[in-house]
Amino acid sequence: MHELYLKPGEHRRLFKGHLWSFSNELQSLPRDIAAGETVQLFTYDKKLVGTGFYNPQSLIAVRLLSRKRELPNEIFFRRKIEEANTLRKKIYPLHETNAYRLVHGESDGLPGLIIDRFDNACVIQSFSAGMDLHLPLICDVLTSIFQPSSIIIRNESVLRELEGIPLYKKIVLGSETDAQPIIYDTGIRYKTHLFEGHKTGFFLDQRENRRMIRKLAANADTLDVFSSDGGFGLNALHGGASALTMVDVSVDALARAEENARLNNFGNCCALQGDAFDVMKNLIKEGKSYDLVILDPPSFTKSRKNLPTALQAYKKLNKLGLQLVKDGGFLATASCSRHASESDFLHAIQQASQPLGKHLRMICKNSQPADHPVLLSMPETSYLKFACFYVTNT
Amino acid sequence: MHELYLKPGEHRRLFKGHLWSFSNELQSLPRDIAAGETVQLFTYDKKLVGTGFYNPQSLIAVRLLSRKRELPNEIFFRRKIEEANTLRKKIYPLHETNAYRLVHGESDGLPGLIIDRFDNACVIQSFSAGMDLHLPLICDVLTSIFQPSSIIIRNESVLRELEGIPLYKKIVLGSETDAQPIIYDTGIRYKTHLFEGHKTGFFLDQRENRRMIRKLAANADTLDVFSSDGGFGLNALHGGASALTMVDVSVDALARAEENARLNNFGNCCALQGDAFDVMKNLIKEGKSYDLVILDPPSFTKSRKNLPTALQAYKKLNKLGLQLVKDGGFLATASCSRHASESDFLHAIQQASQPLGKHLRMICKNSQPADHPVLLSMPETSYLKFACFYVTNT
Repeated sequence: MHELYLKPGEHRRLFKGHLWSFSNELQSLPRDIAAGETVQLFTYDKKLVGTGFYNPQSLIAVRLLSRKRELPNEIFFRRKIEEANTLRKKIYPLHETNAYRLVHGESDGLPGLIIDRFDNACVIQSFSAGMDLHLPLICDVLTSIFQPSSIIIRNESVLRELEGIPLYKKIVLGSETDAQPIIYDTGIRYKTHLFEGHKTGFFLDQRENRRMIRKLAANADTLDVFSSDGGFGLNALHGGASALTMVDVSVDALARAEENARLNNFGNCCALQGDAFDVMKNLIKEGKSYDLVILDPPSFTKSRKNLPTALQAYKKLNKLGLQLVKDGGFLATASCSRHASESDFLHAIQQASQPLGKHLRMICKNSQPADHPVLLSMPETSYLKFACFYVTNT
Repeated sequence: MHELYLKPGEHRRLFKGHLWSFSNELQSLPRDIAAGETVQLFTYDKKLVGTGFYNPQSLIAVRLLSRKRELPNEIFFRRKIEEANTLRKKIYPLHETNAYRLVHGESDGLPGLIIDRFDNACVIQSFSAGMDLHLPLICDVLTSIFQPSSIIIRNESVLRELEGIPLYKKIVLGSETDAQPIIYDTGIRYKTHLFEGHKTGFFLDQRENRRMIRKLAANADTLDVFSSDGGFGLNALHGGASALTMVDVSVDALARAEENARLNNFGNCCALQGDAFDVMKNLIKEGKSYDLVILDPPSFTKSRKNLPTALQAYKKLNKLGLQLVKDGGFLATASCSRHASESDFLHAIQQASQPLGKHLRMICKNSQPADHPVLLSMPETSYLKFACFYVTNT
């Protein structure tokens, strides 16, 4: 294995538990190593930091896999994946759900690797050149542990461009039909489309926040904006919503959401296709208002540079959402933009509410569920923000 | 009503939704107003800020009740209390619980006033001279709306000393027996002791965090430190804990916890009376370890000045707690110190874990439940921090 050395002092963050070493922290950038090679990283004074994947094309030069001299072989991946699965089995009994995030990258000691389990199917996302090289091995380990009927690789994130690796998706095991399992989560069933749906095919990270929605939904005329496959909206109907309007720009997503509503025998729902901002403006013009408005937008920025623009978008979105909430109704609002902090997000909502003369009581603030764990030493592992407000006119 | 004027610019925080004006922000401090009088507050250039209670003996000189010229009379209190109750009725159906915080002070537009409802009893806490003067009126309004069998005033917080008002408790309505209702919350019953228990007699603010404990408790040998009336421990038993050890310094609290265990027909629990830090040190010496350790200490500081000492105490406490968690077990840990931010609290836990060679995955981060709402414009309304970690040996 190649040996890389850090500049003086640059080991400190790593010794506190962080797993990334940036290219400007390395003493000299080796020229003869291919992207994705396994390296040993040392401090300036030659103490071992650990073993990791190196990528000369990424700002994140080294992603640590282990604090020891340890090759990322079958034994290594089996141990890490089984350890991650042990936590999930403790948290998610099979009578509650058959879908969970099995590996949440850095938080499970496997930087740059995401694996979601949907019933008998596994969906993989890789974000580093090193993980890419090990995907065949990872698929073998998954097959050996879980005997899945389907394995799908969804390597389509634009973040891969920062690593200089190509964007693609493919079915490694099983057919396209196998890639459409029906999953369930605390009483609601969802037909998934793991090869066509967003990201890994279905958003698992809002599972607990969707349950919160049930509590706010009794008899509520509900608007679910950026409804995607209907996760929030269906939970509102489960909680007793009197009617549900789903808004999404994607005809396919709305079709999946309506399919899921039928699968659960829910009535009283309709779909509005279009740009969320435009649809909401029209609803305001038409004088519509709702007992419960849910805003679950996609990330508004992939980079820190665009954060101010993203925060303006959150402010604009929540201002529209708040105008559609009845006096004494609820706003549930989320952000999955990694670069927006919780405090940024809440500040945007506060700014949105002020000119409207609406009074907001925050009754719930949440983040990621247990299958998307966070490392205190790596703020980058935390990304989801969710809050609910009781909204009254002042 | 007396009229008070702010110094230039000092209205800004108030115009953004904050409800406190500090004594150094007022133009001149009037000498002829008694503590607790209702005043009108104006900006430097004579725009109305609102109506509030004035207290010359407090750093918080004015606590705003209304943005209008409005007397805090029966109509006012009835409107505010009914509005607060409307939110609670939406969130907490009677089949789920018969206990909730009805009024959470500033967050419900009634600065310095706390009212908890336990079945048919109401417990009141006042934190300002102005509220003190209005307690008879507030009791009348509560009687008129809820026809309670019992009203208790628990004005024992040391924070009252900062307002120059006396510490006392009294039963306004009903007998001591009426002040011991049995409450229930999602399947667990608790005998309360509203005149003798901590604060308002029972801690409602951990209700949702206690439910999280159920998910972590299957077959878990559980240690509940600062167990108080047993709220967390009983939920662990409800979730399938194999055994429960409760630790508290108060013999009375442990007796109440054991009474509650019997009330729910839970076995397999024992109590250890003593200083939590000492008891935990002894358990470590004895080589004990647990699948689930719960730390729910009282506030370690009432003032910002003592924050560094408090954070050291959180570090020490969590270090002891982590040493008692088995490999692959869970730590659930809380802080109700208003002056410790979430980031302070999480940093203390991170510091506690580092020298132990324990690896922590944060699987849950929560704050206050819906009956303890937070105002985005008033960070002071947020105080509770709660986090759960999956703990493995590295």
